[in-house]
Amino acid sequence: MSLEPPIDTEFEGTGRSARKRRAILEAATTSFLSNGYLGTSMDEIAALAHVSKQTVYKHFADKERLFVEIVTGTVNEISDPVYDEVLNLADSGDIEADLGDLARRLLEGVMQPRLLALRRLVIGEASRFPALGQTFYERGPGRTIGALAAAFERLASRGLLRLDDAELAATHFNWLIMSAPLNRAMLLGSDEAPPVAELERGAAAAVRVFLAAYGND
Amino acid sequence: MSLEPPIDTEFEGTGRSARKRRAILEAATTSFLSNGYLGTSMDEIAALAHVSKQTVYKHFADKERLFVEIVTGTVNEISDPVYDEVLNLADSGDIEADLGDLARRLLEGVMQPRLLALRRLVIGEASRFPALGQTFYERGPGRTIGALAAAFERLASRGLLRLDDAELAATHFNWLIMSAPLNRAMLLGSDEAPPVAELERGAAAAVRVFLAAYGND
Repeated sequence: MSLEPPIDTEFEGTGRSARKRRAILEAATTSFLSNGYLGTSMDEIAALAHVSKQTVYKHFADKERLFVEIVTGTVNEISDPVYDEVLNLADSGDIEADLGDLARRLLEGVMQPRLLALRRLVIGEASRFPALGQTFYERGPGRTIGALAAAFERLASRGLLRLDDAELAATHFNWLIMSAPLNRAMLLGSDEAPPVAELERGAAAAVRVFLAAYGND
Repeated sequence: MSLEPPIDTEFEGTGRSARKRRAILEAATTSFLSNGYLGTSMDEIAALAHVSKQTVYKHFADKERLFVEIVTGTVNEISDPVYDEVLNLADSGDIEADLGDLARRLLEGVMQPRLLALRRLVIGEASRFPALGQTFYERGPGRTIGALAAAFERLASRGLLRLDDAELAATHFNWLIMSAPLNRAMLLGSDEAPPVAELERGAAAAVRVFLAAYGND
């Protein structure tokens, strides 16, 4: 008996079915971002992915499920690496430097053009399809703020932060970093990331405000 | 010769033309919010307002101009009263109390259901129609942050705040207050304002963080 973990060909594999699945996801992302959620049909996605409509339905029960999969995939792809860094923050030896690094990484992640476009699409459809926004919120800001809160709790118990409510402090940190550029990008419709120097200045200023309120010195 | 200012019946008056104009704006708001920007036609707006299509075009050159008018009207209606309060802040005798009042008022304004729905619509269309988002940004957050910066500058010169960059401090204040509930509402698609007690707690916490960073004591 092999002790190798089973290879999940459906999701990660290189087989024919996995290739088709990826082609469908790619085609669907293109369609959704160009034509909006309502303006995209399963027929169109099938044509663009060069598969039959039955194949699309074999992989994804309906358009909403397919969209949720795209949101989850995109948000995870961008936030997974940063998520680990957030958890590591709990053991920080130099909190000011590490918060600064983390702030820059969070900001770079959230300002990626594809994620900005997807966020705009999800917001535009949020009243009609709240499940889409719910998924985005939970996988995105909800998850980051949760991980930050856990790290801040631990930093407070190590005497490096001073706080009563770690969730609130995490919310402040998250939005101090990203609100200004994110809300500008949302409204102004620009997917071009701001210059690195500007992001760095913004991140440093956010950390300064955060530590003035929650630092322990 | 009369010294009375001319009555602008076209915009504010009670004449037939002004009544029609208001009916068109109301019909257009309903259509845009229900069917999106692309899904709304001038024909439909004319029918809903019980006027001819020519009348619609007499008042508004095209759909984009009409939409910009709605955004401007809605944002101004909500932000005008708060705007005056922001300017008065410069003369504050009790900065902590006055910042707290202002934070609550800004938060209540930005969380009004019609403004939330309009913001979602504008964001959803921002890539296709950047002029819509530009208008929303300038009349909304841009204008508030500008007024806050002017007030903070004056408060700093009176020795009540400590800051190098009033625009940055204003940006921090604005987003500390509204980011968390606003971004939740955007993604979760809920137009129900959070309970007053929750808004008040959020506003108070934002002021606390702001004064820790920028207060002068």
